[in-house]
Amino acid sequence: VEKDDLALIVSDKPASAAAMFTTNRVQAAPVRLSKQHLKASGGQVKAILINAGNANCATATGDKVALESCRAAAKLLRTQANRVLPASTGVIGVELDGSRIVNALPALARELNAARFPEVARAIMTTDTRPKVSFHSVRLQKGEVRFAGMTKGAGMIMPNMATTLAFLLTDAALTPAQLRPMLKAAADRSFHCLSVDSDTSTNDTAVVLANGASGVTPTPKERQVLQEILCWVMEDLAEQIALDGEGARKLVTICVRGARDSQSANQLARAIANSPLVKTAIAGSDPNWGRVLSAAGNAGVPFDPAKVDIWMQGIQVCKGGLAAPFAEDELKQKLDRRECSIRFSIGGSGKGESRFWTCDLTEDYIRINASYRT
Amino acid sequence: VEKDDLALIVSDKPASAAAMFTTNRVQAAPVRLSKQHLKASGGQVKAILINAGNANCATATGDKVALESCRAAAKLLRTQANRVLPASTGVIGVELDGSRIVNALPALARELNAARFPEVARAIMTTDTRPKVSFHSVRLQKGEVRFAGMTKGAGMIMPNMATTLAFLLTDAALTPAQLRPMLKAAADRSFHCLSVDSDTSTNDTAVVLANGASGVTPTPKERQVLQEILCWVMEDLAEQIALDGEGARKLVTICVRGARDSQSANQLARAIANSPLVKTAIAGSDPNWGRVLSAAGNAGVPFDPAKVDIWMQGIQVCKGGLAAPFAEDELKQKLDRRECSIRFSIGGSGKGESRFWTCDLTEDYIRINASYRT
Repeated sequence: VEKDDLALIVSDKPASAAAMFTTNRVQAAPVRLSKQHLKASGGQVKAILINAGNANCATATGDKVALESCRAAAKLLRTQANRVLPASTGVIGVELDGSRIVNALPALARELNAARFPEVARAIMTTDTRPKVSFHSVRLQKGEVRFAGMTKGAGMIMPNMATTLAFLLTDAALTPAQLRPMLKAAADRSFHCLSVDSDTSTNDTAVVLANGASGVTPTPKERQVLQEILCWVMEDLAEQIALDGEGARKLVTICVRGARDSQSANQLARAIANSPLVKTAIAGSDPNWGRVLSAAGNAGVPFDPAKVDIWMQGIQVCKGGLAAPFAEDELKQKLDRRECSIRFSIGGSGKGESRFWTCDLTEDYIRINASYRT
Repeated sequence: VEKDDLALIVSDKPASAAAMFTTNRVQAAPVRLSKQHLKASGGQVKAILINAGNANCATATGDKVALESCRAAAKLLRTQANRVLPASTGVIGVELDGSRIVNALPALARELNAARFPEVARAIMTTDTRPKVSFHSVRLQKGEVRFAGMTKGAGMIMPNMATTLAFLLTDAALTPAQLRPMLKAAADRSFHCLSVDSDTSTNDTAVVLANGASGVTPTPKERQVLQEILCWVMEDLAEQIALDGEGARKLVTICVRGARDSQSANQLARAIANSPLVKTAIAGSDPNWGRVLSAAGNAGVPFDPAKVDIWMQGIQVCKGGLAAPFAEDELKQKLDRRECSIRFSIGGSGKGESRFWTCDLTEDYIRINASYRT
């Protein structure tokens, strides 16, 4: 349920929860409090309370405001404060007025309604241009299980544990201990393969809630299926973030093959994705593969440049580290599309692969960020 | 001496040389050949041959073209090919036509003249808007010793060993073995504290030549003075690169204090300097210190956010990790200046300090790089 820039996600039944938080050394008050609450409640969550526009980070009253907001929500929902997880997103270093949240809560709580899921996704936006949601369901032996996910984020995006804010809900019956490795594995394949501008925020939070409302307790084998579905939902959300990157006009998918292991492949893909020169080349529909090669060379991963092959939009532009002949005009036209792909093979026999999302870097990124705060 | 985009630096006497090259895994042909030549000649250099516009990197004929160019220059200058260091800068992955260089060399060699130093600095430019030179002289016991330096670079700048191209010349009498640690120490305090866009190029090269033409062989103590002067010249050049960063309107100097050691301080300063959100805030004259704090939090260096103090243009904006009261309009006006400073203290008692240069990130960076190659 949403009201302006405040949102409340409530589970009818108390839900099992697992969460991941930013690895930034500077952590916002709601991140610190969420960690405490998860520990105190043994991973049981009734609600998530989210405000957008103010990160409640580097604030003198931060801890107090976060706690009081949770207490107010808990009172309305007749639960304990530590069953409420707070999350904030927005500007850093500005005091957050807790009374505004507390005063808005009763109206929010009255309007709880599952159909308003997309409105919540809209309420948590900051510089996002559109809400980001993803749904999936699967029929297991004992019945159907559903997943719903939402996320926000457009700038300060290079998730390292999670991104900005992501909330994943399922009605499967799962314990916190079962959820934790599922979330970790899904984040590694989704949000950890995403960068808009190489900045990891102070408020990154990803929470998965499983309230068992479906009545379906999955078998160990079925849990693997659910793990896969959680991953799909999070991949879908991560792609939506890249495509809605601040100022972005294009989603760029980078695939790296032939690395020693998946970590090396991820490092290479990340270096390519974070290169402003690669991102501006894509903005200009310029098949400038030399920048891709140079960016990969800075990843700290050993490889032989003479064995590198590169494709853009499926067209080979570099073969054995040298220019491959291609029709420049044709490729430039293909790079005008909304979805661009870069495939980078380091020519080794390694099984390490990575698929990484980013976006192009345009003048609008500058315009948005040269004036966001004031 | 320069002719269009080709330049030749010749030492009347053979000079002692030391050089540093890019740490990018992908190294251009002239980088590889320069390393070989320095080894073969025992650090003796007669000339440096530089072309701009084509990096001679990821090219099938790269090694051959670089070698033939050096041979042609050596013949004209009556020296051995391994006394000539080649250097290239420009687009990656396009074959370089060696005959153009070989044919242009005789005219270049005829016009050798020390007064044309600034013209050489102009010839090696790519997206630079102005040539970058620096001079310094010092009177030692036995006579005067002079230093002259030039560099180029505006994009793909985060030197890791050296930047793009930098040539430092002195008429002091020094051996290659004496020059090497001097160059390393000076680079650590200058080019290694510089980032325009976090991309390290495939062609980074810094060479220092000492030909002894002054007749002055410095004492060990005087060598320390010369080391200091070399550092000043390189700091001056590094600052000029930051100020001429692609699309940049402002030079940003970041000072970090209180870190455990200078490496931690450098890591913090680099993380702040490479944050696109910090750089766009400076472009917009927005005293958004929250972005500075968040960027530092991603440096991988432990610190207590509650002890952080931040100043912008000498005005404290963050005290103990919280907003410090300041006159916003006054600071915004001060941030409109061409030189901006960010001071970041992590509040520890450590002696680690770093002074790092970068520039603001503007729409013009995008415009330049969305269409550089084609």
